[in-house]
Amino acid sequence: MPDWTALAADLDAADPLATFRDEFVIDEPDLCYLDGNSLGRLPKRTIPRVEAALRQQWGGRLVRGWNDGWLDLPVRLAGMLAKVLNVQPTEILVGDTTSLNLYKLALGALRAHDKRAILTTSDNFPSDLYVLQGLGAELQVVEPDLLESSISADTALVTASHVAYGSGQRSDIAHLSEIARKNGAWSLWDLSHSAGVVPLDLSTADMAVGCGYKYLNGGPGVPAFLYLRSDLHETVLNPIQGWFGQDRPFSFEPEYQPVAGIAKFQVSTPSILSMVALESGLELYPEAGSELIWQKAVSLTAFFIDMVCSEMPGQFEIVTPLDPAQRGAHVSLRHPEAWRITRALTDRMNVIPDFRRPDMVRFGFSPLTTSFAEVATAVHRLTKVMKDRIFDELSDEMPTVT
Amino acid sequence: MPDWTALAADLDAADPLATFRDEFVIDEPDLCYLDGNSLGRLPKRTIPRVEAALRQQWGGRLVRGWNDGWLDLPVRLAGMLAKVLNVQPTEILVGDTTSLNLYKLALGALRAHDKRAILTTSDNFPSDLYVLQGLGAELQVVEPDLLESSISADTALVTASHVAYGSGQRSDIAHLSEIARKNGAWSLWDLSHSAGVVPLDLSTADMAVGCGYKYLNGGPGVPAFLYLRSDLHETVLNPIQGWFGQDRPFSFEPEYQPVAGIAKFQVSTPSILSMVALESGLELYPEAGSELIWQKAVSLTAFFIDMVCSEMPGQFEIVTPLDPAQRGAHVSLRHPEAWRITRALTDRMNVIPDFRRPDMVRFGFSPLTTSFAEVATAVHRLTKVMKDRIFDELSDEMPTVT
Repeated sequence: MPDWTALAADLDAADPLATFRDEFVIDEPDLCYLDGNSLGRLPKRTIPRVEAALRQQWGGRLVRGWNDGWLDLPVRLAGMLAKVLNVQPTEILVGDTTSLNLYKLALGALRAHDKRAILTTSDNFPSDLYVLQGLGAELQVVEPDLLESSISADTALVTASHVAYGSGQRSDIAHLSEIARKNGAWSLWDLSHSAGVVPLDLSTADMAVGCGYKYLNGGPGVPAFLYLRSDLHETVLNPIQGWFGQDRPFSFEPEYQPVAGIAKFQVSTPSILSMVALESGLELYPEAGSELIWQKAVSLTAFFIDMVCSEMPGQFEIVTPLDPAQRGAHVSLRHPEAWRITRALTDRMNVIPDFRRPDMVRFGFSPLTTSFAEVATAVHRLTKVMKDRIFDELSDEMPTVT
Repeated sequence: MPDWTALAADLDAADPLATFRDEFVIDEPDLCYLDGNSLGRLPKRTIPRVEAALRQQWGGRLVRGWNDGWLDLPVRLAGMLAKVLNVQPTEILVGDTTSLNLYKLALGALRAHDKRAILTTSDNFPSDLYVLQGLGAELQVVEPDLLESSISADTALVTASHVAYGSGQRSDIAHLSEIARKNGAWSLWDLSHSAGVVPLDLSTADMAVGCGYKYLNGGPGVPAFLYLRSDLHETVLNPIQGWFGQDRPFSFEPEYQPVAGIAKFQVSTPSILSMVALESGLELYPEAGSELIWQKAVSLTAFFIDMVCSEMPGQFEIVTPLDPAQRGAHVSLRHPEAWRITRALTDRMNVIPDFRRPDMVRFGFSPLTTSFAEVATAVHRLTKVMKDRIFDELSDEMPTVT
């Protein structure tokens, strides 16, 4: 059996992104944090920036802060996010939340389309399904492998997660968007589990949404984003007609007149502290470079899968595809005791994965913060949990958040 | 002519709320900040709390922060806001923005009502009018003094600002809501310019919205709130079907099933840094007490009006009602040179009011932070601007934000 600890040390020594770990607050060196796909770590540089936004900008400049830079913040962040999504800054809006952005785009699309049916997959985020169920459209939910063949001449909108939150299965955006287009449908992708870690090709996609608090390390509940291809900017309108989506918002005109371009999807006053926090996270992405980030994601997930298969052969079903081209940066293991295994890791072994119902333990790998040593330690601890059946000691009561 | 400076000193000496000014960051003692109704000042206690939320909670606890208290934050804030709005905590939701909350309630109400017409006033926030124009309802916009007589058997929803952002005119919520009710209509009030400063009686009102960054001192773009009377909780539903409005959100059920009560109006992950900032602002309200806050608002506005009328007789039209029962905590002065006067005050005299198109200078008075001395100084400076016609030196070019 390989010496995984030594192998991890070699991989860390050769990792060009290893020093990025120093850019983040890491209070507990013993903690294996494999949940950056739920909430990314805090960049050290975020702290003085949020403090400055509070103390100097709000405290010192008061309402003048809006003219001193706050109003430009969404545009500045769009410019930074454009590098992550590989699209034009003018096609991106930063603000609100993923669900709100999905609502705005999907309802806006439905109203602009002559067809009524929305097609989505059963492995999409439940949060996305809830939003879609509330649009008054015909909603068709199919198994992920039936998505392509289910796109028909009746379809107005095809929408799915780029990387499925549970299985980690990655869809081929370019191909599926092209199929949608050939059928006269638009495509809308949820990039929450891929933005900032997986290569993105939105060249044939029409719309996308995603959040800032996972691989983008923006912090709990920070603004999300939406993407709308530029040639749809005057076709797909925001159903929530907001002040900040108005042409000349500070003229206080009584009639809504949407501003040209993507800004019409803004609704209200942006949340400044959250925007400032997100800025630091976005800044790190081009510093590391998309290629190295994705390469490390592949290495981390492969190392994890190899070690699990080697140390605990046959004990788990690897739900996530073994081909890196078909997965994101998280790996899910299926086991009937998944919940109690997750709890044993969290409560007894100082490893934080995620439980996903009904029977998956999900491990997320953030290339900027996760080390190979951390992965090796986590799997060694998982091996101990399984060997000593530590999960037997735990109740199967479910908590509020899993 | 009275010695206004001496009078202000006496009023400050006798002011039971005078010490609350020490609770806030005040960097420039010379600045007369009469725009707390656009953005309230930064409470000193907000700084360590936001820092703790960043450093200890996000940085140290990572995703465990959700179970350590973040998930309870909206409920905790609702409990605090209930004291401000004088309603039950279970009738309040904190989150999203004023426009989003207005959209959710107004559209939810329209869908639950058998009538289709929305009645509002021309002095309502343009931001509110934009949202209402996007609902696909019949929208009737009337002059504020015609609101009562325009409520008819066709009206589904009566909605207006409690205190008009421009004129400062305050509506009688209890009376107008009762008239609406007698006509089979629901009422929805925007409390943005009254929450935290004006006495509130929502006993006959059905719905309300408002923001946290004005008199509640929550900070730029902090979460807003909505109020829905408890007996409408199962009738008026949230059109934006969100994860956090789901019954048992962490079960990941595929079908949306709204949770009982007000929580169904939550959509997504709450913005934690902003919520934490708002908490400090809300905390100060019961410490000062609603009665003393309102008494001081009356005194500040009366002192300002008296001094303006005495020092500059006939130079301005006082747009805001002279009867305190009919106004909020801001006073607007009409003048053909309003824009250049505002600019002279801001750029030359270190006084910050607001300009409101087409011809008003608006002065806001925040009882927790505004001193009588500050008001006296501001009016002396305004007197100088008018006497020396300092505004003549300025161009009339309009800025981005006014």
